[in-house]
Amino acid sequence: MNKNIHTFIGCDNEYDESQIVIFGAPFDGTTSYRPGTRFAAAAMRNESIGIETYSPYQDKDLEDYNFFDGGDLEFSFGNPAKVVSKIKEYTAGILKDNKIPAMIGGEHLVTLGAVQAAAEKYNDLHIIHFDAHADLRDDYLGEKLSHATVLRRVWDIVGDNKIFQFGIRSGERAEFEFAKNHTYMHKFDMKTLDEIITKLKNKPVYITIDLDVLDSSVFPGTGTPEAGGITFKELINAVMLFQNLENIVAFDINELSPMLDAGGASTACACKVLREMLLAVSK
Amino acid sequence: MNKNIHTFIGCDNEYDESQIVIFGAPFDGTTSYRPGTRFAAAAMRNESIGIETYSPYQDKDLEDYNFFDGGDLEFSFGNPAKVVSKIKEYTAGILKDNKIPAMIGGEHLVTLGAVQAAAEKYNDLHIIHFDAHADLRDDYLGEKLSHATVLRRVWDIVGDNKIFQFGIRSGERAEFEFAKNHTYMHKFDMKTLDEIITKLKNKPVYITIDLDVLDSSVFPGTGTPEAGGITFKELINAVMLFQNLENIVAFDINELSPMLDAGGASTACACKVLREMLLAVSK
Amino acid sequence: MNKNIHTFIGCDNEYDESQIVIFGAPFDGTTSYRPGTRFAAAAMRNESIGIETYSPYQDKDLEDYNFFDGGDLEFSFGNPAKVVSKIKEYTAGILKDNKIPAMIGGEHLVTLGAVQAAAEKYNDLHIIHFDAHADLRDDYLGEKLSHATVLRRVWDIVGDNKIFQFGIRSGERAEFEFAKNHTYMHKFDMKTLDEIITKLKNKPVYITIDLDVLDSSVFPGTGTPEAGGITFKELINAVMLFQNLENIVAFDINELSPMLDAGGASTACACKVLREMLLAVSK
Amino acid sequence: MNKNIHTFIGCDNEYDESQIVIFGAPFDGTTSYRPGTRFAAAAMRNESIGIETYSPYQDKDLEDYNFFDGGDLEFSFGNPAKVVSKIKEYTAGILKDNKIPAMIGGEHLVTLGAVQAAAEKYNDLHIIHFDAHADLRDDYLGEKLSHATVLRRVWDIVGDNKIFQFGIRSGERAEFEFAKNHTYMHKFDMKTLDEIITKLKNKPVYITIDLDVLDSSVFPGTGTPEAGGITFKELINAVMLFQNLENIVAFDINELSPMLDAGGASTACACKVLREMLLAVSK
Amino acid sequence: MNKNIHTFIGCDNEYDESQIVIFGAPFDGTTSYRPGTRFAAAAMRNESIGIETYSPYQDKDLEDYNFFDGGDLEFSFGNPAKVVSKIKEYTAGILKDNKIPAMIGGEHLVTLGAVQAAAEKYNDLHIIHFDAHADLRDDYLGEKLSHATVLRRVWDIVGDNKIFQFGIRSGERAEFEFAKNHTYMHKFDMKTLDEIITKLKNKPVYITIDLDVLDSSVFPGTGTPEAGGITFKELINAVMLFQNLENIVAFDINELSPMLDAGGASTACACKVLREMLLAVSK
Amino acid sequence: MNKNIHTFIGCDNEYDESQIVIFGAPFDGTTSYRPGTRFAAAAMRNESIGIETYSPYQDKDLEDYNFFDGGDLEFSFGNPAKVVSKIKEYTAGILKDNKIPAMIGGEHLVTLGAVQAAAEKYNDLHIIHFDAHADLRDDYLGEKLSHATVLRRVWDIVGDNKIFQFGIRSGERAEFEFAKNHTYMHKFDMKTLDEIITKLKNKPVYITIDLDVLDSSVFPGTGTPEAGGITFKELINAVMLFQNLENIVAFDINELSPMLDAGGASTACACKVLREMLLAVSK
Repeated sequence: MNKNIHTFIGCDNEYDESQIVIFGAPFDGTTSYRPGTRFAAAAMRNESIGIETYSPYQDKDLEDYNFFDGGDLEFSFGNPAKVVSKIKEYTAGILKDNKIPAMIGGEHLVTLGAVQAAAEKYNDLHIIHFDAHADLRDDYLGEKLSHATVLRRVWDIVGDNKIFQFGIRSGERAEFEFAKNHTYMHKFDMKTLDEIITKLKNKPVYITIDLDVLDSSVFPGTGTPEAGGITFKELINAVMLFQNLENIVAFDINELSPMLDAGGASTACACKVLREMLLAVSK
Repeated sequence: MNKNIHTFIGCDNEYDESQIVIFGAPFDGTTSYRPGTRFAAAAMRNESIGIETYSPYQDKDLEDYNFFDGGDLEFSFGNPAKVVSKIKEYTAGILKDNKIPAMIGGEHLVTLGAVQAAAEKYNDLHIIHFDAHADLRDDYLGEKLSHATVLRRVWDIVGDNKIFQFGIRSGERAEFEFAKNHTYMHKFDMKTLDEIITKLKNKPVYITIDLDVLDSSVFPGTGTPEAGGITFKELINAVMLFQNLENIVAFDINELSPMLDAGGASTACACKVLREMLLAVSK
Repeated sequence: MNKNIHTFIGCDNEYDESQIVIFGAPFDGTTSYRPGTRFAAAAMRNESIGIETYSPYQDKDLEDYNFFDGGDLEFSFGNPAKVVSKIKEYTAGILKDNKIPAMIGGEHLVTLGAVQAAAEKYNDLHIIHFDAHADLRDDYLGEKLSHATVLRRVWDIVGDNKIFQFGIRSGERAEFEFAKNHTYMHKFDMKTLDEIITKLKNKPVYITIDLDVLDSSVFPGTGTPEAGGITFKELINAVMLFQNLENIVAFDINELSPMLDAGGASTACACKVLREMLLAVSK
Repeated sequence: MNKNIHTFIGCDNEYDESQIVIFGAPFDGTTSYRPGTRFAAAAMRNESIGIETYSPYQDKDLEDYNFFDGGDLEFSFGNPAKVVSKIKEYTAGILKDNKIPAMIGGEHLVTLGAVQAAAEKYNDLHIIHFDAHADLRDDYLGEKLSHATVLRRVWDIVGDNKIFQFGIRSGERAEFEFAKNHTYMHKFDMKTLDEIITKLKNKPVYITIDLDVLDSSVFPGTGTPEAGGITFKELINAVMLFQNLENIVAFDINELSPMLDAGGASTACACKVLREMLLAVSK
Repeated sequence: MNKNIHTFIGCDNEYDESQIVIFGAPFDGTTSYRPGTRFAAAAMRNESIGIETYSPYQDKDLEDYNFFDGGDLEFSFGNPAKVVSKIKEYTAGILKDNKIPAMIGGEHLVTLGAVQAAAEKYNDLHIIHFDAHADLRDDYLGEKLSHATVLRRVWDIVGDNKIFQFGIRSGERAEFEFAKNHTYMHKFDMKTLDEIITKLKNKPVYITIDLDVLDSSVFPGTGTPEAGGITFKELINAVMLFQNLENIVAFDINELSPMLDAGGASTACACKVLREMLLAVSK
Repeated sequence: MNKNIHTFIGCDNEYDESQIVIFGAPFDGTTSYRPGTRFAAAAMRNESIGIETYSPYQDKDLEDYNFFDGGDLEFSFGNPAKVVSKIKEYTAGILKDNKIPAMIGGEHLVTLGAVQAAAEKYNDLHIIHFDAHADLRDDYLGEKLSHATVLRRVWDIVGDNKIFQFGIRSGERAEFEFAKNHTYMHKFDMKTLDEIITKLKNKPVYITIDLDVLDSSVFPGTGTPEAGGITFKELINAVMLFQNLENIVAFDINELSPMLDAGGASTACACKVLREMLLAVSK
């Protein structure tokens, strides 16, 4: 008899035969308000049986491709630097095997480890960033490693004009000032994404989706829900544009906090976003 | 003194004087994910006191018409065939009295019993179907009677080109293939409904509304909430088009699971949909 | 050492130096369905740390202005007349000091006390009213003081053509009839608000926002959530139009019931509405 | 066809043939902390199908007796005096027909109306009172009618040495002082109840059970849950002692707030308490 | 890299090297009130990381023994007979390999399949049954296969004087009558269990624990919570007595419904009961 | 006008006139399972209005003494060492003024900072520790600072035979082994506490109460609820014994996670424990 394997729906292939490798990064140690994103990846595996493997949006099916789900990384508690380092190492291993890492957060800081690994491999790395929050503080209450500083730390690595932010509607004034000089920021919605996609067509691109880019009506299950965001249809349209990118090197979706939406709609929504991302990236 | 009568708001008339007969079908025995729709009709009666009897959309009032609320059917547990049969029998009784059955599910399988009864009376029966899911599987894990097969079972009865599906955004690829040849399916939204309504103006029509056709933001209180659906305004506009149908013979609304939205917004929403349907069908 | 001060985020200035005075009116004694709005103001103070003081919509920051938060009034239970009277007295004190009261309900009846005070100071007072419900009944189950009668009581004070209602989608037929002759009522959405704002540019205006004007997807945390409402973006656009009013004399936001949206999205949304209102009114 | 009758399980007999008359008093207008008891009676009717009509404690079955369930009284909001008066009138009607009223609160103030009616009929009325709270304040924030003053108001009617309080573990010091001179108060548990029962054997007795007398572990679904209370077994033993009382003239159970225990254990517990009370009082 | 294995804590050994085989039976198709036990086994695996592998009660550690966790069986929906049959077959396979099945329900009907398999192997099978409910109906609303009839169906197999019931406090009068003649039933608590254990010392014994035997304060997360039950300490003492049984051939724990206790205390409690059972049965 | 002061009920005195100083330590950064204790102190201040200032257990009233509530410390996120250090510094300040710190956690690690400060002032410091968990690991997944290691870190400071643990029922075997040689550990309940109290009568004593020492039925609102614990009455009896200690130098209560018990019973329970502790320590 076999042991109980637990994967995201339709992602039960072997590592060697898979182009995309899913893993969870169950960390929420710098979350400044309601914690709980550590439970996201496990919840998504559980609840993914409620969605279908087939996407009527893309007319593709998870069953048409191979995906490996490596489960959740194991982290200690109270040591963000160690967590980032562990994510970097794991992501680097996948990249070295010429596979595409698909990380499920956790809070947004997890992106830093994955970007560190990707930037070491690709020296012209570009970042597409969907979020309600700018995440561009230089520090947060004195800490350099934080969900609120993560894109600033990414900027430390990739530099000016490499980060493309969409849907932003929350932050300190200083963050919005910083963005004017150092990143491309489109506030509130997804407009101009098509132009950016065209521009980045052949570039190595890392995509990070903070699910709170969605309106809080669509996605209440997150630590700092923000009204005024995009609809699910807008997000799906954005994801479908990603089919035009020829070199997505890794991506993550993050900030689902399943306990905060006990009815399950947010987790179901996150599952569909992951399905569509997996299909958009699969060739 | 009188015993405690419990009806949907404004629907406390006698059977004989009512054109429309409301009843609940509290069955969720084939629900494949989160059960709980068995509580829908009772919850809607309880919570309907939170809405008004007057509709500013249609400028009509439930008090202007007579409605009888027969309460919930009593079902045994674990025997879907018996449940379908009991619904068929009860619906047939109402139809025989030349009244319009208005069934509150329960899961979507309950529609089968009502359609069986309606199809026996009307041999040219057409079906308008709002749903997130195609519900066109031939079987579900080996079972022929399931919420996931119900429209396929309905097709067994009414045949090709009689089923008109709107809002569909989830299913297996095979279901979408089946639809191409056997039903009219409009994916994702309500567009073209007006044309279909015109076409079916004088036909006998059964309307089945799976409330998960609504976006999961509007209607999280259901077993498999699906992002990417229609807004309440789109649904109301659709319902108002129904005023143009001259022969609605029965209808149902289903798949509310009140426990999954403890705050009550989904139940309140379902109550408004029922109010608008009752008024749209009333002459 | 200092005692623990508890204010809405960024609103910890002294009374004398502040143009706007925030206070809570924790009353829900006439709520006819699910009570709980008494907890709104305290919840908003708690949860406001999850939002930013800076608004990217208005490019203004709460830190740029001074706001005093006086905490919650203390009410007895079961005596609406006494509550209204206490609110009137407190509001009158603020107005006398030439400051702008910003009241957080509580249920909608709290508006009456504040309007009584404002109308005594400004004899040409106009009311802008956002709501799902008309609130124009003359009495509710025999009681004159009720959340369901509050705009009628306001009309008793200000008279015909002074009340401008937007977003209304629920009420008795008689309330809609009354509105035709005595108020300006725009149903369902915010259209024509810009024209009304132009017209009221120099008038003394009291603004009352029942947050259930928002669609129940955006704002489920309220006693009688109503589908079919406006989006948060529509509400923000309306609030930004208020920047064109030159004499907003007082305002309130009401009907948040935090317990009914345990995940916190509704409370977070209310916090953003309050931030935007505070900034729109600040000169 | 018959309309939908909604009663507590096994209590669907006609008024004329029933010795005990159940009714709900859905009032929580003076609740000082978390409101919601207005929903108790309806919730108990709904959920009573989860319990059995047979009691293995008393070896009696609700089916062995006749009970009439008159549903909930309809109250206006914000007027406690009118509510008390309506309860008095309804209770008096039942007593006049020589039946035993069994009232389901609502908050504890509802007891006042029922005691007023009972005391008019029985001039030597005694009160057995189970509660976590003394409820003996003379006023609460200036109001004479309050859940926190209800036993004091009862004392106004019945006078010294007629009130027997058990399980009390919360109150102001002044209330405990008052009890020393005017009531019999046994703190914390049910000890000495057997002696009191013996003493009151032939007296007319009104029993009022505030369910928060139960430990908050057993009964979290109440506005002010109090740890340190009695177990369910202790309460059942107390109820069984009531079989020895020969003249229970009326009783109530109150302070269930179903929304505060979403899982339903508190409501189920209240249903069992009501079943046992109905059986203990039935001859 | 390895796929994501998901087991109960400390139970990740291989099948061949394990004496006890854990599996989930995620079925709740005959649940007559609140469904949801289908999620129990998955929830217990998730949440078991919150408990320790070491028991200070028994001074034993799950790490001292080998356990295999085979995951959940896959069932279709709406066909109880097929479910029972699948459980029987799976259990029989484990028994044939001379291992001890440890089944996690699901609702109580799942016990039937496991007992069928055990009774085929052991013709003198005895049953120890902990439960709030007698579960001795001959049918439930006409259905023979039901959580409410399961011990009656077991009695059909094992016959008189083989079933030992403890903690029973709910049922129809007829069930209690049946028990007098056909089973050993000890109502309300665990008294006399030690004597029964002594008597059954060398017999083949199947143990079935319906967790609602626990007081609803300890275990609210179940479909029909019943106040008046045993404490956790009483249950642990009972489990420790099982160490004296020399031939426990299989056991199950059932009726956890995790959604009904969102805070997780019930699931954590169930995990501890399973840990203690696994250790008590391990030699 | 005064700003909004927010304190635990009856604790609104000035610092200089108070013997006991309350403060919150809203940290849960090493919580290994469900986080959320960061919200405990704020929730307790909010909900304390639901309890009385008078204790019928001790016949004392919070109004009889002076208490200062300094609010919550502000911590950064992701840096446990900095948090511990900040707590130490704040506690030391209170101790220097010869006042008694009363800290509300947060997770249990917060105790370390307070003990560091107390041990610097009192070189014969003894610790009384109530908990479900031993908290004696030397490290947790490699981290030295953790809720799971906190008593071990305390032992690093105070050494052998200074720590007295009660109610312990969970931990690794190695922790129980460690306790045998280095601490006094009484498992499962409070027995022998009276003897220990007698022994420590004149010693400087720090008391730390992890509220999960309570049975999970009484206190489900905590990250790792543990069945098998003590009742509230047992805890109150223990607290009352503390009246016999002549030199309590500081104390804390910790591990309330309010979101995990949405109905509020756990928070209300924690409030009563704090009230009783404040009264027991007050002279």
